[in-house]
Order: sequence, then structure tokens, then C-alpha cells
Amino acid sequence: MRVFLLKSRMRNIEVCVSPELIHLFETKGKNVVIVDIFRATSTMMAALANGVESITPVMDLETCRVMGSKGYVIAGERNGLAAEGFELGNSPLAYLNHAYAGKKIAMTTTNGTSAIEKTKSEAHQVLLGAFVNIKATTQYLNDQSQDVLILCAGWKGKFNLEDSLYAGALVSHLHPHFRTDCDSAIALKSLYESNSHRLQIFLGQASHAKRLQNHNIDEDIAFCLSMDLYDIVGLLSGGELIGIQTNDR
Amino acid sequence: MRVFLLKSRMRNIEVCVSPELIHLFETKGKNVVIVDIFRATSTMMAALANGVESITPVMDLETCRVMGSKGYVIAGERNGLAAEGFELGNSPLAYLNHAYAGKKIAMTTTNGTSAIEKTKSEAHQVLLGAFVNIKATTQYLNDQSQDVLILCAGWKGKFNLEDSLYAGALVSHLHPHFRTDCDSAIALKSLYESNSHRLQIFLGQASHAKRLQNHNIDEDIAFCLSMDLYDIVGLLSGGELIGIQTNDR
Repeated sequence: MRVFLLKSRMRNIEVCVSPELIHLFETKGKNVVIVDIFRATSTMMAALANGVESITPVMDLETCRVMGSKGYVIAGERNGLAAEGFELGNSPLAYLNHAYAGKKIAMTTTNGTSAIEKTKSEAHQVLLGAFVNIKATTQYLNDQSQDVLILCAGWKGKFNLEDSLYAGALVSHLHPHFRTDCDSAIALKSLYESNSHRLQIFLGQASHAKRLQNHNIDEDIAFCLSMDLYDIVGLLSGGELIGIQTNDR
Repeated sequence: MRVFLLKSRMRNIEVCVSPELIHLFETKGKNVVIVDIFRATSTMMAALANGVESITPVMDLETCRVMGSKGYVIAGERNGLAAEGFELGNSPLAYLNHAYAGKKIAMTTTNGTSAIEKTKSEAHQVLLGAFVNIKATTQYLNDQSQDVLILCAGWKGKFNLEDSLYAGALVSHLHPHFRTDCDSAIALKSLYESNSHRLQIFLGQASHAKRLQNHNIDEDIAFCLSMDLYDIVGLLSGGELIGIQTNDR
């Protein structure tokens, strides 16, 4: 069956390097992978892999605060720092050792949540992209018939290095099962492949990493660049992000 | 004097990968290099190097037609083809052998002219970026004190491979005389450096190149990817693009 599928229609993969360019892409019916490596999507995957029941992405701090009064644990950052009055910021380390297992989280972040909002209405599925579960996401996308669009959350609308490198890595992992005639996909695949042996050093140059280093979160950065810690995928389902074990499907 | 200048302030170089992101960048006081490799800026450089007196970039075909009645030779393309009733399309080869020497050209193109329009009011200078004169442009920018912003014309607002590779090449050529803490500059510098030995093959994958190949213009593509044919720079001066011999300054 899968052989027939691959022969009948080659699936397509594209990369949108900034949410501000998303209107130039068709999202309808596609599997859209949202990427915000430092740190929203990495943190979400850490939370889901450590037993968090669901994460509700919300656009602003005020909505998040309201959800706090309804039993949600609220998590939010602005410009890389925990928002005032929030139990959690955006550090993936806070969720380790099943610290919030069974809890429902409401989370707002600078760039990641906004990227989810822009695509969720039309996409077939919205997935979370992070290095910590890249193989699980690769396997999941490979097993589906939909085209893939990777949307980099970027930094205040601009191209950023860490999200782009993840996009290139995912294109590389999905090659040759997906066509890559999108120029950004071709470019970022090459960028990843020529820097995969020195990812941490290369990313050390990134402007966002430099900003985060100023907040003394070296451990967060090292975590976000760890490969394949988890074998679950993160999916949007009924407005909530949930984790699905790839072996369970 | 130059040593003092370099010590006193390290100049900055940035890359904007699409005209649709230009509002996120400061253009004021910078040398802005507009890049539309296939084919607007390559064609403009070929024209200026072959004795064309000036090129006036205009936004639309109708304005171009009006200028035709005022003695300008009119050149224009839409979607890769010569516009109806225009003497010239957008092929650089038409200008070789000084075929239009001494003429004033009015030119409109799909992406390139629009990129010039978006930056010309605030920039210190607007330059044309093309592989055919990349060393001359490098030398010119190096001799000036201004920060540099490279603006890729892209394809209908999207990131494109050929313009991005040129941007990476120019960042690479200007390194280490300019700082490159802009993530797209860092990424594209690396992309260029790891593909410079096989530029034509790598660009063969580009979607825009594929489109152009369908119009039977392989020779145009080969021309646009030729390095350092000319030692002049292309500059916007009083609304007109003119060529300046780098050795004359």
C-alpha cells in the first residue's frame, strides 16, 4: 500500500522561514510543522514527554492569566524571561522528572504561539518541531500521505538560525521520500548537511542564542539542541497540544 | 585614515531574504545592495558595462511605455517573458557588444524594480548586486564607512536560491571587515561557502532557474552566474542607475 502511494503521488515539502511570509504559502490540507527551537517547541515537547496532559497555546498573557484561575498551570515568557506572576517561564528543564505530569498547561510565547495561530484553521495537522524528537516526527510524516510545510517561528518576524537549521534537518531526514523544489527547503537542507557535525558551534553565532546566553540559560540551549530524547510527536488536537507515542499508533 | 575608521567602529552587514520583510530592517543611512540575479540586476550590470548611459527603474509597464515616447528605450518583462510592445525584455545578452551604448533605458521587472522602490528613499546608496561584478561591489563597499544591507528580490515575495547565494557570497567576500551577527547573513555565508565549488549544479535545483529553463534561456542563466566580468559598480543616482568604474573613483 505504501509503495503504491509513493508511486502515485510524490509528496512535497516546503519551508516558510518567517510567519510574516506565511500568506504566500498554501496551508490547506498540509501537515504543518511549527518550529521555535529556542525555546517554545522544545519546551512543549519536554512537557508532553514528561507526562503533561495537554498544552493550550494562547496568544497573550492576559488570556493565560484567566486560564490560571480555571485550574491550568500557566507558562509564559516575553523576550526570553518568565512573565510576571506566572508559575512557569519557557524553560524545558522545569518539566523534567515528570514535575508537571497529569497537569494541563496554558502557554504563551513570543513567536511560537503566534505561528500556531496562523496555521491551525486550515492545516490537516499542526505538529511541533524540535530536535529533541526529530526522528519521531520524521517517521510520523513519512507514514502520512499529506504534503508538509515547515513554518519557522523566527525572531520578531526575521529569519533565525536555529529554526532554519531544524527545518533543514527535517527536509534532509525526509529526503528522498518528499520532493524539495521549494528554494528555502533546498537551501536549508544544504545548510544543515554541511553543518550537522558542528551544530552547537555553528549555532553559537546565532543572534537569538546570544540573547539567551545573556539570560544565563546555557543549560536550556544545550537541552534544545539535544537529538532524539523522546519518541513521541506533539500534535494539535481540538485546540490543545498533546503527545502521541510513535509506537502506539 | 582607513585603519582608524575600522578600529573606531566595526561595520555591520545584514541580509533581508524577501522584500516582504524589509519593514523589519533599518535602511536609513545604509548601503543597500539589491539582488535579482535571474535576471534584473545581472541585466542592468550588463547594460551599464556595455555603455548604456543610464537605466531608470519604473514600477509598471504603463509608465515604461510613456517613457518610450520620450526617447527612452523601454525594457520590461513579466513572469520571465518580454512585455508586449517592448523593444527589450530582460535578457542581459541583448546589451552585449555595446548594442545600446549611449542610450537611456527605462526598465521594469517583476521583483527587482519593486525592491529598489522600497529602499531608495532612506538608503545612503542603492547598489545593484550581481555575480558579474561581485568583486567590484565588494571593493566599493569595503572602501566606505556605511553598514550594508543586502536585499534579495526573491520570487513573488518568497526566499529564492540564486539571490540568497549571492547574498552569502557578498557576506563571505566582505568578511572579516564587516560583522555578521544577522542570522540570515550567517546562514547564507555558510551556504555559499559550502556550495561555491558547484554553484551552477546547486542552482540547477532552484525553482526560478527551472522556470527560466522552460523559456529556453539557458544562455541567460549561464551569463548571470558568470563571475567578475565587469569592474564597475551599479549605483542609483537621482532616480537613475549608472555605472561607475571602480578604478576611477
